Amino acid sequence: MNATPEKLDRPNNEYLDSILGTPFGILDHGFIRVIDYMGDEPAIAQAARVSYGRGTKAVSEDRGLLRYLMRHRHSTPFEMCEIKLHVKLPIFVARQWIRHRTANVNEYSARYSILANEFYIPELGDIQPQSKSNKQGREGDLPDDVKHSMIETIRQQSEGAYQLYEELFTGWPMFHEDGTRVADTEPPVPHMAEHGMAREMARMVVPPNVYTEWYWKVDLHNLLHFLSLRADPHAQMEIRVYADMICEFVRGWCPNVWEAFEDYRMNACTFSATEMKLLRNMIMNGEPGLPPKLGNHSHMSGREVEDFNRKLRSKTSK
Amino acid sequence: MNATPEKLDRPNNEYLDSILGTPFGILDHGFIRVIDYMGDEPAIAQAARVSYGRGTKAVSEDRGLLRYLMRHRHSTPFEMCEIKLHVKLPIFVARQWIRHRTANVNEYSARYSILANEFYIPELGDIQPQSKSNKQGREGDLPDDVKHSMIETIRQQSEGAYQLYEELFTGWPMFHEDGTRVADTEPPVPHMAEHGMAREMARMVVPPNVYTEWYWKVDLHNLLHFLSLRADPHAQMEIRVYADMICEFVRGWCPNVWEAFEDYRMNACTFSATEMKLLRNMIMNGEPGLPPKLGNHSHMSGREVEDFNRKLRSKTSK
Amino acid sequence: MNATPEKLDRPNNEYLDSILGTPFGILDHGFIRVIDYMGDEPAIAQAARVSYGRGTKAVSEDRGLLRYLMRHRHSTPFEMCEIKLHVKLPIFVARQWIRHRTANVNEYSARYSILANEFYIPELGDIQPQSKSNKQGREGDLPDDVKHSMIETIRQQSEGAYQLYEELFTGWPMFHEDGTRVADTEPPVPHMAEHGMAREMARMVVPPNVYTEWYWKVDLHNLLHFLSLRADPHAQMEIRVYADMICEFVRGWCPNVWEAFEDYRMNACTFSATEMKLLRNMIMNGEPGLPPKLGNHSHMSGREVEDFNRKLRSKTSK
Amino acid sequence: MNATPEKLDRPNNEYLDSILGTPFGILDHGFIRVIDYMGDEPAIAQAARVSYGRGTKAVSEDRGLLRYLMRHRHSTPFEMCEIKLHVKLPIFVARQWIRHRTANVNEYSARYSILANEFYIPELGDIQPQSKSNKQGREGDLPDDVKHSMIETIRQQSEGAYQLYEELFTGWPMFHEDGTRVADTEPPVPHMAEHGMAREMARMVVPPNVYTEWYWKVDLHNLLHFLSLRADPHAQMEIRVYADMICEFVRGWCPNVWEAFEDYRMNACTFSATEMKLLRNMIMNGEPGLPPKLGNHSHMSGREVEDFNRKLRSKTSK
Repeated sequence: MNATPEKLDRPNNEYLDSILGTPFGILDHGFIRVIDYMGDEPAIAQAARVSYGRGTKAVSEDRGLLRYLMRHRHSTPFEMCEIKLHVKLPIFVARQWIRHRTANVNEYSARYSILANEFYIPELGDIQPQSKSNKQGREGDLPDDVKHSMIETIRQQSEGAYQLYEELFTGWPMFHEDGTRVADTEPPVPHMAEHGMAREMARMVVPPNVYTEWYWKVDLHNLLHFLSLRADPHAQMEIRVYADMICEFVRGWCPNVWEAFEDYRMNACTFSATEMKLLRNMIMNGEPGLPPKLGNHSHMSGREVEDFNRKLRSKTSK
Repeated sequence: MNATPEKLDRPNNEYLDSILGTPFGILDHGFIRVIDYMGDEPAIAQAARVSYGRGTKAVSEDRGLLRYLMRHRHSTPFEMCEIKLHVKLPIFVARQWIRHRTANVNEYSARYSILANEFYIPELGDIQPQSKSNKQGREGDLPDDVKHSMIETIRQQSEGAYQLYEELFTGWPMFHEDGTRVADTEPPVPHMAEHGMAREMARMVVPPNVYTEWYWKVDLHNLLHFLSLRADPHAQMEIRVYADMICEFVRGWCPNVWEAFEDYRMNACTFSATEMKLLRNMIMNGEPGLPPKLGNHSHMSGREVEDFNRKLRSKTSK
Repeated sequence: MNATPEKLDRPNNEYLDSILGTPFGILDHGFIRVIDYMGDEPAIAQAARVSYGRGTKAVSEDRGLLRYLMRHRHSTPFEMCEIKLHVKLPIFVARQWIRHRTANVNEYSARYSILANEFYIPELGDIQPQSKSNKQGREGDLPDDVKHSMIETIRQQSEGAYQLYEELFTGWPMFHEDGTRVADTEPPVPHMAEHGMAREMARMVVPPNVYTEWYWKVDLHNLLHFLSLRADPHAQMEIRVYADMICEFVRGWCPNVWEAFEDYRMNACTFSATEMKLLRNMIMNGEPGLPPKLGNHSHMSGREVEDFNRKLRSKTSK
Repeated sequence: MNATPEKLDRPNNEYLDSILGTPFGILDHGFIRVIDYMGDEPAIAQAARVSYGRGTKAVSEDRGLLRYLMRHRHSTPFEMCEIKLHVKLPIFVARQWIRHRTANVNEYSARYSILANEFYIPELGDIQPQSKSNKQGREGDLPDDVKHSMIETIRQQSEGAYQLYEELFTGWPMFHEDGTRVADTEPPVPHMAEHGMAREMARMVVPPNVYTEWYWKVDLHNLLHFLSLRADPHAQMEIRVYADMICEFVRGWCPNVWEAFEDYRMNACTFSATEMKLLRNMIMNGEPGLPPKLGNHSHMSGREVEDFNRKLRSKTSK
């Protein structure tokens, strides 16, 4: 409908080009590296303009458009960017990650190949007791000797499991048929040298702190959704550190989108219809501070009242 | 798990780079142009190797791997490539195209913007009667004067509809309240100069041979699926010409994948369990030609018998 | 992990059972009817409890759980409900609707079958001029005679288009080869009686206010997302009336989910990080009403300031 | 477009109703049970007829239509049926299963809840060595004493891991800070009785033969795709037994669809363009049996020649 340019150069992004292929270390043996990408902020604006209107806009106007799109939760223009990552991560993290379905994945297969002897062992500072308030989180601290002992437990368990794994797929098992342990001094059982158990079976003894790796490709809209859940304080630390690194990638790649995402999504607060009634009363009646009897409000649970107060006081929480 | 390179250059594809941005004309006013892409054949092989095994393979071995992946219908490695197209197409074609859900789309919005006065008018050779054998196709020929008249009908209808559309959104309608036509000699009704009908309503009079345009982004696996349906002889001609052009893009971009796709999908034949029984009999018993009484085979409909014979005789059909 | 019951009765929903199959009229010729469904509120709670914990909870506790899930934007438990609708709708509405990709659709095919002669003709009250503030909407009013004339235009255009459509697929065209109209008094051109144009081509003259129909099946999570966009005041009226009807279905089917959806989504307000700073200042400093110089706030555009004020004052808007 | 009935009864399926809720045991501790479903064979035919245009056909004609849809790989009508399963399965099986993205899942969360002490321990007959021909499979046999020892290894490893898991989340670790094992005779370290490690961390020592459970909901089209991959002889036995059970559910639910699926998909053979050339030569030239020099055919690898011969000889393989 408008004149189309006869020839384009491929859009590229200097920031991503500068880190392409470089592994950024995560946890003790993991990494993320950017393998490839498609599109950039002008590509988002270009796609939005085909939908929402026209005119050869100056680059300086892109920022306003990108913020508008984010504010009004337009999603399809952000789908026009794509990024491909190579990630090495513990299997229990991979299990959470894979729940994000709108993405493309090729994972290392332990049916085809032998798992490497690399396990995630938490550091002292990462070990925390079960949170009392958050059923799915950790909170507080433990004595150092307990934590040291726990780390040692996980390390020995991982090492022992890997040894068993090797014995299973090589055919040098650790136990006699009667359940007693083969002593290190005993000669290996001769016929076992020849056949091990199939890899697809042997892997079942390797605990999920073992590392796997995959290529993961996703569009920017779905990536932002992933980040809104996984770079959140409620996410498990071991996936959040990956998400935090990806946040840096997005910030370098699409800085205006990132800024808008932080402003309108990550650091925004949503108030329910009930909360809005309260809020409007507070503001219109000019009452200083929070109403003392907020907890009595009929339709809100104790937890909701707490949330409401937290949103009004906190600088960061949602 | 293996050593990773510290820095990558972004993979690029010479063929696609050479055509990036160039519009290829389709139908009378349509076009397709490649806007951007991600990945290439080595990227597919790379992703497959993370899943299916290892070793720094020579480039020459990629071809075998790609063919293996296609033959065994592995899909995820092909999802690692992505292409973004800018397409101008009639709305009735867009309606078929959009049914492919695993893709990203930003379409020109006739709520925001005014549709251009460009309509698809078929050429003489494209007009055919309803197929007698294929309930959803066209087949055979019509006398030239009939076809000329049909083209003229479509042209006048398109032009008239666009004129009405303009009158609706500018506020200069064609009809008096009593249903009589405003003559060209009458003065325009004064107050109409100010207000037209909202664009989102006015568009409802514009027939679906009007052109729209969109950005369409899709991964290679889903693109091949699209092509297997839309570059097929049973697809409507007006979408097939778009698919055919995209076939050329894929052939230039990933030549080994394309070759394998033609061999194992486009030009392959599938025989049902019942057909396989027949086939094995024919071959094992060494009977020359096709069995005379094939039609009597109990579990096959007349149409299936026809299909069976066609598959064995034809060079191209499925 | 817990004892599982040996035999279940299929969960059913009295409200949906009472309306199953009944067409509810929408616009002039459209309808929606519920064809089938799967699941109900206990099914959502059941799926959530497998994820988030246990215990045979009393039915009375389901409400709290459902509200918790909605408040924290948990999505997968709502995906456990599914509904199938039979919808008759104008094609320009269908074009918006189909953009929601996570759904299953079977649409009437105008390649196989002949479109019915039913067109959406707007009523007097629905015709409005283009909105000045909303680039994609309608707002304000027009003189009655203008609106009558517009309706007449659309009606005549629809009728004329259908007549042409019939002539094309039956082979009785309206125009001579030289472009002059066949008069009603002339005898029909003999050979045309035999062959018309293929249906897949002839349909291109039928404008998109013609009715189509489809079966549409979707899970409750994706349905709520659809409703949040299409039952919104910014949605085009002609799709909003369908969405509004579906809202009634959901309210009857899952009343607690619906209530939570209205409270936490439809009637909730989201404040950006910047807006939250303003809000906290207003409340903590106890200043009555809105600050006079709000518009000077550095990071907010004029439109955002307007939105901010509107959110604080309005009872319904977002 | 046709008259619509004013009131429907909800379609139900006697077979599924008869097994609803009943757990069918799989492996040593797993199960599948059907929780709910939507649609049946008439619902598929009904949706197909809205697309492909039909008439009120007799029920007896449904079979032909269903077979036609399957033969021509129409997918959307099969999406009109949905089934919801409750499955208990080892985590390493769940990891394969979850790769099927077009489905809805709610899985037991080991962040919220404690994993049960139930592990998959293979039976003697299931233990096989790595296949020599299939890089991802198992094939052949092992001596009984080796297999007994392997089973014992897996059992002891599972039990030991669960004990560690309990100690971690209850705070009674097995090791002193210096890495030496706490003897059973030593008194428990007092302060550990109070705090364990958060569940989301402790789970990392539990190997993936532990059982998890989930609700899994999928449409029939995507379910058939799942079955074509997972009820295949190349699938890992531990997931195939689940798929085989689901095959029985589908056979009871939609018997004509199942029959067509077996005929046109599961037991069908696809021949590449190259193979078709060979096949046509064999049949048209009436040569008895297979050509002796097939292996010399230029474009086929040794593996492809093998596949070709196998397809012509075998009764079941693809």
